[in-house]
Amino acid sequence: MRIARIAHPEGMCFALVEGEGADVRLHEIEGHPFADIVKTGRSWPLADIRLLSPMLPSKVVAIGRNYADHVKEVFKASGESLPPTLFLKPPTAVIGPEAPIRIPDFATKVEFEGELALVIGKPCKNVPRERAMDVIFGYTIVNDVSSRDLQFADGQWARAKGIDTFCPLGPWIQTELDPAGLPIKAHLTHEGVTETKQDSNSDQMIMDIPEIIEFITASMTLLPGDVICTGSPAGTASMFPGDRIEIEIPGIGRLANPVERAD
Amino acid sequence: MRIARIAHPEGMCFALVEGEGADVRLHEIEGHPFADIVKTGRSWPLADIRLLSPMLPSKVVAIGRNYADHVKEVFKASGESLPPTLFLKPPTAVIGPEAPIRIPDFATKVEFEGELALVIGKPCKNVPRERAMDVIFGYTIVNDVSSRDLQFADGQWARAKGIDTFCPLGPWIQTELDPAGLPIKAHLTHEGVTETKQDSNSDQMIMDIPEIIEFITASMTLLPGDVICTGSPAGTASMFPGDRIEIEIPGIGRLANPVERAD
Repeated sequence: MRIARIAHPEGMCFALVEGEGADVRLHEIEGHPFADIVKTGRSWPLADIRLLSPMLPSKVVAIGRNYADHVKEVFKASGESLPPTLFLKPPTAVIGPEAPIRIPDFATKVEFEGELALVIGKPCKNVPRERAMDVIFGYTIVNDVSSRDLQFADGQWARAKGIDTFCPLGPWIQTELDPAGLPIKAHLTHEGVTETKQDSNSDQMIMDIPEIIEFITASMTLLPGDVICTGSPAGTASMFPGDRIEIEIPGIGRLANPVERAD
Repeated sequence: MRIARIAHPEGMCFALVEGEGADVRLHEIEGHPFADIVKTGRSWPLADIRLLSPMLPSKVVAIGRNYADHVKEVFKASGESLPPTLFLKPPTAVIGPEAPIRIPDFATKVEFEGELALVIGKPCKNVPRERAMDVIFGYTIVNDVSSRDLQFADGQWARAKGIDTFCPLGPWIQTELDPAGLPIKAHLTHEGVTETKQDSNSDQMIMDIPEIIEFITASMTLLPGDVICTGSPAGTASMFPGDRIEIEIPGIGRLANPVERAD
């Protein structure tokens, strides 16, 4: 089942996504998707609606340094062995597909990070890894946009990764997916040329999904709709105004956003 | 005007706080406090209600390293000059007065940090320091509870400062206050003996309140109810199960919480 949140001609709603390619149709559902899914009977083709961020999370918890190849490329200055770490992105950074990533003038080295994101389905705390999959509602794609200059100048990553628009999420939530062995790709279009910059696989995570859930919930209660970013593989690179960045995870879809300069 | 959020015999509400000491009375108001304040006519003495966290923020943005004396005591290993930095505490960490701070077994050096907190009153972005005071709804007290062992082991502070119950807030919001020259004190009761551990003043901030608002809103939109922690002065110290920690800011009040071991 794929669940989107959409702006349609008469308002906004959650919707079931049915069909493929040009035949995708969005079927409005009653209320939110954590209860029984009941269609209202209204539906629209993809061309008549706008996909929004599929969830407005109360918090976005992210795992940093969870792919060895990415640790090497970003943290090369340090000789230490750096374990995965936890950080937060603010809800105000979340945007949906095709919404512009807006770079302020004080962020001079802004990179994309394509990642598999988990959407939590139940309030939970102290979840052992054996039961971790029970609290996952579904999977989506996140672009953990990061300003490397601010990230290293500040030490703490909250500002570098928390700027408004720096958390594109979407295109929808896929509830039926085996997260093992998922390809994760990032395609950057710069000056009209598209290059595949990230080309990795969820199998390369250092801390796997059940371990991530156990690790986070040992400290923090997770609530329905909360989003967990599972970490970025290697291949992150700078984006500039005028670029277009598309993250692709087969089985979920593609999350594409243009890049602009903020006013 | 002082605004509290309370649990009363028939439910929960925001309330105007009137009177002092044993004569404090809580007057229920209609809806939330960002619109016109209208009393419903119901009221209770302090003894008949429980004070809750005065706000449920969509985000808690905090400034670290904002008092020179505290930078020296906590970051002494580093010879560098460390500027103030920004981090986030998750909304799930927020608790109210008298709710227990619960320490999990993997957090072995948990300290209090008494701080002046700002409560935002308007959606805002890119606020220049000259207009910063216009977006503040009021002031309250926060205890930025921090597990120093995890803080330094993780590098990122989100887990060390984001554990459930690690953000006591209260006792209420004071909307009429000059935040300049405010004493900030922390009184720790350990094995029956109370000692004043923090005894500083808001004048000692490195980045002042208008600069903090300008700095944060250059990156992040703030929403009504969002809380900003302005940084901790020196004197932070370890807390243990059985202790009681009370943060005092004259003009606002006292925020007291017992300390327990988490199950």
